[in-house]
Amino acid sequence: MFNKILIANRGEIAVRVIRACREMGIETVAVYSEVDRNALHVQMADEAVCIGPGKAQDSYLNMENIISATVLTGAQAIHPGFGFLSENSKFAQMCKECNITFIGPDAETIDNMGNKSKAREIMLKSGVPVIPGTEGSIETVEDALKEADRIGYPIMVKASAGGGGRGIRIVRAKEELKKAFETAKSEAKVAFGDDTMYIEKFIEKPRHIEFQILADNYGNVIHLCERDCSIQRRNQKVLEEAPSPVMSHELRKKMGEVAVKAAKSVNYKSVGTIEFLVDKNFNFYFMEMNTRIQVEHPITEMITGVDLVKEQIRVSAGEKIEFSQEDIDIKGHSIECRINAENPKKGFRPSPGTITLEHLPGGSGVRIDSSIYQGYTIPPTYDSMVAKLIVHGADRKEAISKMKRSLEEFLIDGIDTNIEFQLNILYNDSFQKGDYDTGFIQSNEDTLF
Amino acid sequence: MFNKILIANRGEIAVRVIRACREMGIETVAVYSEVDRNALHVQMADEAVCIGPGKAQDSYLNMENIISATVLTGAQAIHPGFGFLSENSKFAQMCKECNITFIGPDAETIDNMGNKSKAREIMLKSGVPVIPGTEGSIETVEDALKEADRIGYPIMVKASAGGGGRGIRIVRAKEELKKAFETAKSEAKVAFGDDTMYIEKFIEKPRHIEFQILADNYGNVIHLCERDCSIQRRNQKVLEEAPSPVMSHELRKKMGEVAVKAAKSVNYKSVGTIEFLVDKNFNFYFMEMNTRIQVEHPITEMITGVDLVKEQIRVSAGEKIEFSQEDIDIKGHSIECRINAENPKKGFRPSPGTITLEHLPGGSGVRIDSSIYQGYTIPPTYDSMVAKLIVHGADRKEAISKMKRSLEEFLIDGIDTNIEFQLNILYNDSFQKGDYDTGFIQSNEDTLF
Repeated sequence: MFNKILIANRGEIAVRVIRACREMGIETVAVYSEVDRNALHVQMADEAVCIGPGKAQDSYLNMENIISATVLTGAQAIHPGFGFLSENSKFAQMCKECNITFIGPDAETIDNMGNKSKAREIMLKSGVPVIPGTEGSIETVEDALKEADRIGYPIMVKASAGGGGRGIRIVRAKEELKKAFETAKSEAKVAFGDDTMYIEKFIEKPRHIEFQILADNYGNVIHLCERDCSIQRRNQKVLEEAPSPVMSHELRKKMGEVAVKAAKSVNYKSVGTIEFLVDKNFNFYFMEMNTRIQVEHPITEMITGVDLVKEQIRVSAGEKIEFSQEDIDIKGHSIECRINAENPKKGFRPSPGTITLEHLPGGSGVRIDSSIYQGYTIPPTYDSMVAKLIVHGADRKEAISKMKRSLEEFLIDGIDTNIEFQLNILYNDSFQKGDYDTGFIQSNEDTLF
Repeated sequence: MFNKILIANRGEIAVRVIRACREMGIETVAVYSEVDRNALHVQMADEAVCIGPGKAQDSYLNMENIISATVLTGAQAIHPGFGFLSENSKFAQMCKECNITFIGPDAETIDNMGNKSKAREIMLKSGVPVIPGTEGSIETVEDALKEADRIGYPIMVKASAGGGGRGIRIVRAKEELKKAFETAKSEAKVAFGDDTMYIEKFIEKPRHIEFQILADNYGNVIHLCERDCSIQRRNQKVLEEAPSPVMSHELRKKMGEVAVKAAKSVNYKSVGTIEFLVDKNFNFYFMEMNTRIQVEHPITEMITGVDLVKEQIRVSAGEKIEFSQEDIDIKGHSIECRINAENPKKGFRPSPGTITLEHLPGGSGVRIDSSIYQGYTIPPTYDSMVAKLIVHGADRKEAISKMKRSLEEFLIDGIDTNIEFQLNILYNDSFQKGDYDTGFIQSNEDTLF
């Protein structure tokens, strides 16, 4: 096992990793930017090294400085957390060349899964269902019509270079295709200088359901069941729950096996997540694989009893997984609410500033992973998520009631937060019935704010 | 189910009950003394009623005022918590006569179990092992010698009216008895004005192991395994763990069955605890039954997944227990540390005052049941326990490492606490081996402070 780990991250995930290390008897090194001098992770680690100015590019993304800090402090491994360098294959490779263990999969795996079309290709080859679509680019309206017929409407016309909703059109019937194709193509030309187009099946009202994977260096790959992350705003997860309220035992078995197959197809090692889109008939399609620990990993820990960060560190140190798929069973129900320093009523505008009062909820079944404290000043520089509130109940109903009372106990003064917004989600009838999809927040705008 | 419950208590247990009620959709009424105006339970309840001056006798023990507050607010039931009126049969009876549900067993059961010699008699009759001793009082040295021979040395000579260690002598051999009997008797005469004596087997280096009982109105009585509460200071529990590090599957089965038998022998309803002394050969003896929720109930909740306060409320409302003995199994290991406002280095002198800074531990497997907050002033009027830190790990080793790192994260400024003292217990070798008895703190005085 490692004697010392450097955590190349900040915020609650850095705190999370430090806690796991401390419980494992591993020393920790925090890194921090100049604006993060007073951050909690800096105070909690055994050592702390400043790695540059506030701008992430100059500090948390500065590979050379992070490698230097690792060598300087004699840490044997780097935990990248999520975001920042966690899915950067160049960094993983650099660690390897410096004889430092990157706590995650190897550079090649990160590369393969980071490239959407490469990942799709690998999954197709391994028999993992992907969203039906064209393999190459589509040049003409005639080709588009032919491909759309093959895939079946509704479809999406998408610009390869697309992003932010531009160069994309949903087409529900043949007669709409010509116009949609042409306008999307010219929009792409103007927006990205590249009008390469492709076509994909449009999944109506999908759920985002992902499977947690754990794999060691000895070919053992297991899944730890699913998380339902359909409550999203602009593709950002807001609230997650496990298990999914629509999951059946049979579907879990089927999707879990596919997830394990997907991970095995890239010879995966470490923790990772296979994200699926699930349609209303419970067809599911591989979306992407995240080759790192996820923000929402605690809900899986709550229902399975497995400490994912400790397991991640253990397999990176070359240890075998000590349990098998059969040992994993679900106990109760867990929900996570991301607590963000933002104002939902003002377009979710970030709300950095000084926390003048903080009172945390507590009691039975309540877990808080937070990086803030009373008196702390949240800098305007980074992501607005400052804490995660996670609850566990005997069943979904109890988990919901526990989350409600916990959110109601949670007091933060001095900044705006999304606590009331999260409460509104929990009080929503459709949410309480488990009847929601990725469009939930958008279609409930009138009652959630 | 009740619509509204009044909580006749203060501190963290009042907060605990309010949380359970809120999750169950039950309205809550807090009561408070004049010095508790700013207490957390007052702020968290739906309603709050002042029931008198700070002195407990005038407020939290003032039955008339509490009954009045209940009638006034239309609450249908009273949760007594622990301490105060929780084991007062007169109060339970008064509730009954006022048509208010007392959340606990009936007055007769409280009476039977509250009277030590009556409880002993009932247990003896039901075949529950009790500490061997004389049934009546012992008048002469001759009788004492005869009884001591029957019971077997070592024995204790005890004054019936005794307390605080006075009027008690341990006798290890026959030749010591005469002197011990006579001095204890005269000491009792002086101290209590009553020299009635009895003799009891002296259990060397016992462990305090207790079984949690849950019983409904339909004759269903189950146990939820044991808690080891041997880490005590002057008969006050300091740290508790579940399961006991010395428990075997067979002994648990045997003691559990006896505990259920003991509860059935008094037709018990509600949650309750059967306390046993266990000697080094794993002989166990009934000590007493606590007819209320215990301070240390959370560790049982952590390993069984059963919410004891909710179950207590449910059975009081006439609901049946929805699971059976076979459904109860132990998952992992849990430890609780009582966090007291006191100074262990100054003879555990209470340390009331204003909390100028509070930072709570968090993360995986950490639960906090607390009644304090930053800025709160702890009054000098009541018990010094202000919070409970509870952890859960996959096994005892992980639970210990988790408790250590949690205690190290726990910051309280402005008052003295026993956090460092608790840490010293956790770092003690014998504790880590699970090798301790009720004399642990006394025999480790040189290293714990």
